[in-house]
Amino acid sequence: MHSAVILLICAGAVFLVSGDPVSEGDGVHPRSPRVKRAPGDSERDCTATPPYIPPTAKDTTDLLRRLRQGMQSSAYFAGSIQAYIIPAGDAHLSEYISERDQRRAFISGLSGSSGTAVVTNDGSGGGKAAVWTDSRYFLQAEQQLDCNWILMRQYEEGVPTIVEWLVSELGPGGRVGIDPHLVSISTWQEYADALEADGTGKTLLGISDGNLVDDVWDDRAPPSTAPLITQGLNYTGKSWEDKITDIREKMTEQNADALVLTKLDEVAWLVNLRGSDVPFNPVFFAYAIVTANTAVLYLDTNKVTDDVRSHLRLGCTTGVSCVQVEAYDTLLSAVEALAADSGIRKIWISSASTTYAVFSKVPESKQILDASPVMKMKSKKNAVEQQGLKNAHIRDAVAKCEYLMWLEDAVPGGSVTEISGADYLQQLRSRQRDYMGLSFPAISASGPNGAVVHYRPSEETNRPITTSDVYLIDSGGQYKDGTTDVTRTVHFGQPTDYQRETYTLVLMGAINEFLQVFKQGTFGIRLDQAARAPLFSYGLEYGHGTGHGLGSFLNVHEDPYFGGSAGVPVGEVGTFITIEPGYYEDGQFGIRLETLAMVKEADTKYNFNGRTYLTFEPVTLVPFQEKMIKFDMMNENQLTWLNDYHRMVRETIGPELQRQGKNDVNDWLMKNTQSFETSRISSGAKAVSSIFLLAIAAMCSVFST
Amino acid sequence: MHSAVILLICAGAVFLVSGDPVSEGDGVHPRSPRVKRAPGDSERDCTATPPYIPPTAKDTTDLLRRLRQGMQSSAYFAGSIQAYIIPAGDAHLSEYISERDQRRAFISGLSGSSGTAVVTNDGSGGGKAAVWTDSRYFLQAEQQLDCNWILMRQYEEGVPTIVEWLVSELGPGGRVGIDPHLVSISTWQEYADALEADGTGKTLLGISDGNLVDDVWDDRAPPSTAPLITQGLNYTGKSWEDKITDIREKMTEQNADALVLTKLDEVAWLVNLRGSDVPFNPVFFAYAIVTANTAVLYLDTNKVTDDVRSHLRLGCTTGVSCVQVEAYDTLLSAVEALAADSGIRKIWISSASTTYAVFSKVPESKQILDASPVMKMKSKKNAVEQQGLKNAHIRDAVAKCEYLMWLEDAVPGGSVTEISGADYLQQLRSRQRDYMGLSFPAISASGPNGAVVHYRPSEETNRPITTSDVYLIDSGGQYKDGTTDVTRTVHFGQPTDYQRETYTLVLMGAINEFLQVFKQGTFGIRLDQAARAPLFSYGLEYGHGTGHGLGSFLNVHEDPYFGGSAGVPVGEVGTFITIEPGYYEDGQFGIRLETLAMVKEADTKYNFNGRTYLTFEPVTLVPFQEKMIKFDMMNENQLTWLNDYHRMVRETIGPELQRQGKNDVNDWLMKNTQSFETSRISSGAKAVSSIFLLAIAAMCSVFST
Repeated sequence: MHSAVILLICAGAVFLVSGDPVSEGDGVHPRSPRVKRAPGDSERDCTATPPYIPPTAKDTTDLLRRLRQGMQSSAYFAGSIQAYIIPAGDAHLSEYISERDQRRAFISGLSGSSGTAVVTNDGSGGGKAAVWTDSRYFLQAEQQLDCNWILMRQYEEGVPTIVEWLVSELGPGGRVGIDPHLVSISTWQEYADALEADGTGKTLLGISDGNLVDDVWDDRAPPSTAPLITQGLNYTGKSWEDKITDIREKMTEQNADALVLTKLDEVAWLVNLRGSDVPFNPVFFAYAIVTANTAVLYLDTNKVTDDVRSHLRLGCTTGVSCVQVEAYDTLLSAVEALAADSGIRKIWISSASTTYAVFSKVPESKQILDASPVMKMKSKKNAVEQQGLKNAHIRDAVAKCEYLMWLEDAVPGGSVTEISGADYLQQLRSRQRDYMGLSFPAISASGPNGAVVHYRPSEETNRPITTSDVYLIDSGGQYKDGTTDVTRTVHFGQPTDYQRETYTLVLMGAINEFLQVFKQGTFGIRLDQAARAPLFSYGLEYGHGTGHGLGSFLNVHEDPYFGGSAGVPVGEVGTFITIEPGYYEDGQFGIRLETLAMVKEADTKYNFNGRTYLTFEPVTLVPFQEKMIKFDMMNENQLTWLNDYHRMVRETIGPELQRQGKNDVNDWLMKNTQSFETSRISSGAKAVSSIFLLAIAAMCSVFST
Repeated sequence: MHSAVILLICAGAVFLVSGDPVSEGDGVHPRSPRVKRAPGDSERDCTATPPYIPPTAKDTTDLLRRLRQGMQSSAYFAGSIQAYIIPAGDAHLSEYISERDQRRAFISGLSGSSGTAVVTNDGSGGGKAAVWTDSRYFLQAEQQLDCNWILMRQYEEGVPTIVEWLVSELGPGGRVGIDPHLVSISTWQEYADALEADGTGKTLLGISDGNLVDDVWDDRAPPSTAPLITQGLNYTGKSWEDKITDIREKMTEQNADALVLTKLDEVAWLVNLRGSDVPFNPVFFAYAIVTANTAVLYLDTNKVTDDVRSHLRLGCTTGVSCVQVEAYDTLLSAVEALAADSGIRKIWISSASTTYAVFSKVPESKQILDASPVMKMKSKKNAVEQQGLKNAHIRDAVAKCEYLMWLEDAVPGGSVTEISGADYLQQLRSRQRDYMGLSFPAISASGPNGAVVHYRPSEETNRPITTSDVYLIDSGGQYKDGTTDVTRTVHFGQPTDYQRETYTLVLMGAINEFLQVFKQGTFGIRLDQAARAPLFSYGLEYGHGTGHGLGSFLNVHEDPYFGGSAGVPVGEVGTFITIEPGYYEDGQFGIRLETLAMVKEADTKYNFNGRTYLTFEPVTLVPFQEKMIKFDMMNENQLTWLNDYHRMVRETIGPELQRQGKNDVNDWLMKNTQSFETSRISSGAKAVSSIFLLAIAAMCSVFST
């Protein structure tokens, strides 16, 4: 009996000394060589003769021909323009934009949230076309662009900026057209300044009477007529009257007599209304102008139903708690009226989110250019919103766990694809209370598709989910009490050692971020390195942000961001932000682990000068997959966090699963959130000095033989 | 024999389970209550009747009376001014300034590198006086200011900025005077804009014909006549001709026809000359203007000796490798000439380091306002400079180790004070090759003085170094091959558990920073949290930067900084930056551990997309004190780094000590850089799960009884 105990301990000790026998010896992971693209491949090859274009690419030859005709001669301007910039945005600089506003995607074929197209016109029907996008969309661009288009890999070394390229492409006196309704103030100024600085008479021309892309868009969708939704106090925690009062306080602090709100989510948040004019974000086309004693909403007045009328207490005509409704397209003239009103000394416009079209109506002497006060107020959730977001994530986790359990069973059968999987997840989510739709198109990505950071499966790219691939599912829902956005990465067979190693580094990055303690007011940029550090230390990285704020039944992306150094800090109690490091092995697999966090007060041993410190509380409660984790790479603090997290998951999601009668899912959850006690021994003991272990080994050899 | 081995292991194991018996139970460290200041105290009490002013404070009553006379009526301006701003800087916005330029210190009594004074004038001989300074100088200010002065604790909540205070103090039409030679462009604009924005006719008035403080400064020192020193290629690694060629390339990239350099260290670096016109920084009063085919140095021409003449190859009158020398005070007229020269389209002035006096001579159409190219070039040391800085730190470590060994012996005798200790260290340093003087006034601080972050011992504050106090020594030297700046904190008796705990957190912060791996071009702000995280997690913090660049026999503070997010990145191979977290317990003790680091390529397992990653290599090689370290708080990576560091110290400094025949110091070094193998056992084993330990304990109890 005694010697059996000793043997057990000795076995443990020897195991601990050797560590994981697989991980140490495999050296540098082999990288796939770049091969020339060939027919049947999923990416274009414009150097081949003839060029190879995959079926996922859009044929834009005729569209570009017609666009260049408009650039050469149009009713909107005299003469011709030599280049036309086509931004991705709408008149509210939205991220998710309605189909009728997706001009860049229409003209180039490149879908995705980020990217700007530029078409040049050589005067004889020809010219160049280029689209700038960031690393999230590089692979996607190669799959969607035809060879009329140059892909400009934004932020990569040696790649010109839009204006650098324009300056080099255009001759002296070249005119660059742009729709001022679709461009921010800073972008307009950047373009205009750079063209002027070239010193050869190049100019930026605002073309506001019509849009040249719209003119060649034959089957453009009509404007949305979707109804508005009223959000009650049980969801918002604050009436629109109180919000307007808060805004007016901020205006007084800034000496602003008027505030123009142009961001759709800011308007929706302010008046506690939602809509569905753009996909995924529950917003509606509207502007708002607030002054000391008026508040006017500019929107499609057909949407003002009795319900909305009552919610806004319309009919009330005077007093600070009155709101008026005006037609959407009267906004610019209303801004002009403010500009001309001698009683209005200063007009606050959001420096980051106002279009040049609106900005140019306000004379410089009246401008207050600063971050909108709504941006910051909206990011710090009140108690009702906090609880709503947490509740939404509990129900969302039920669907996500149900989905992962189902996949474990269904994937080996071979019938599940990226699309059918995502569809089933959407079904599961839709059965949850207060579900209102997806918060963004699900990224359901198997194997190499996982390396396309903002991948969205299409019929052309759809792959089966298999037992030999890594599977990444990044998906979220809109619920009346909150917006969700969660990513988990799993393997239904035997992951490679390299996949486990990189998964573990990503997980360590997420945990490192959760372990940060920081001061009130801290900006995201100070906290970004923590999530990247484990990957960097292995010479690996990811080319996207570490995380973003998210709305209370609103936009899935809002301030703050981990990269941010101004505007909205992360360091405020009640701020929600995703923590989502990743790793992407081009052509092989992608790993991302995205967990929503809420900023709360930290429980510290001391409190220097009576100050409180902040930390992150997990809001997303979905297990990490044990088989993907190499516990011996993690330190004790990380392992403790992981065990605590899984305990929180089982104790929070378990009861909800039981309440919903999903006992099978609860069993699955219990199995997948067990404490990693055994693994912790192996990891912890790695820290024990070899002398100590040799002593134990020697002792054991004495007593056990 | 066997049971003895078991007992030993069991004792270790039991110790490990319980952890440090002192540290766990004492809860929140008791903070000293704020007591009303009383006679004999070291800080002022302006609420007492009569106010209590310590002997370290300066009596400024008569000076302020005379200054206000000048504000009421002066030959430099018509009418009167209601406030006068007295910046800390000189005409080069230097950090260390010559005695004759220390106007803010002279008028207020507050010495130290940071602080701005403002004096108001109520027209009848009275008014207020306030000085703004940052947390490094809060305690010092209470010791040096008399009760004429309000201490404005900059950046603390509720403390007005200078302009907020001026706006609230002055009536409509109030005029605020300032010497434009002593203020940066941005500070001038901040003051001017805020006064204008008040909308009551307040204005900022540049008073350039004379300085009102100088007029009441009876015994002001004359200008320096210190000779120049030439730096050969063996120290600089690059000739001034090559540097000017590099600068001209940057000017071409920026389309600049002229570059005006106003920072003393930038001019010194450019022409490979040094001087001693200001304390501690080996610079001389000079400006430089570079154009495509001229380079002119503006300085006291009496300093141009034959040696300097030969170094600069004066006499050469044409060609791009020629430099001309002009009188120092002709700079402004030279800038005016450039501004009037139609062949000069654009003049590059450093946005951060140019005075408003120079800036205002360049018309807006000709301005290029950007960081000086020298700032960035100077921060990335070449191979010769790298080796020089490393060599200087080896010799500097010899002196520092010798000092610490001597203190261990001398302190118990009771005869060493902060001042006599620092003097002895300076003696030891001065015996090292190429020693040129201190790089800043030594911070030799015993007990509570250590909590005064930028403390400098004076006769009034001098304390003995004892066996019952924490002792902090932050000191550096100027050597012809490099500048040093090192801080170590030690205890010559028995430190308290709280002192050890906070020391360990500071050390963990430093090590965390050294363990960071990051990308090329990374700015300091992304790396700042790593050094603060261990303290934050305990609810503790420090109120100063994490570290700064330092020159090659130049200024002890230069770009980059860990707080910086623009201008000069940390992420460049060859960048030197100090890593210096700290902790300060007001009235009790201070801890700071400052270790110079060089940025080098990291040795990573992988290299994502062929990229290289960067990390920090220690350049300062002085041991950390073992008795101050609670090893059980540290993780395995931190302990490994610490052991590796101490091995590097013994292997690098040991041979130099032997070469210098300092065998006793070498013995001390060997003793103080031993591997913490035993301690690592205790720490590592904390990670072992308690089940494992209970099993060992059970086993031991069986065999050892």
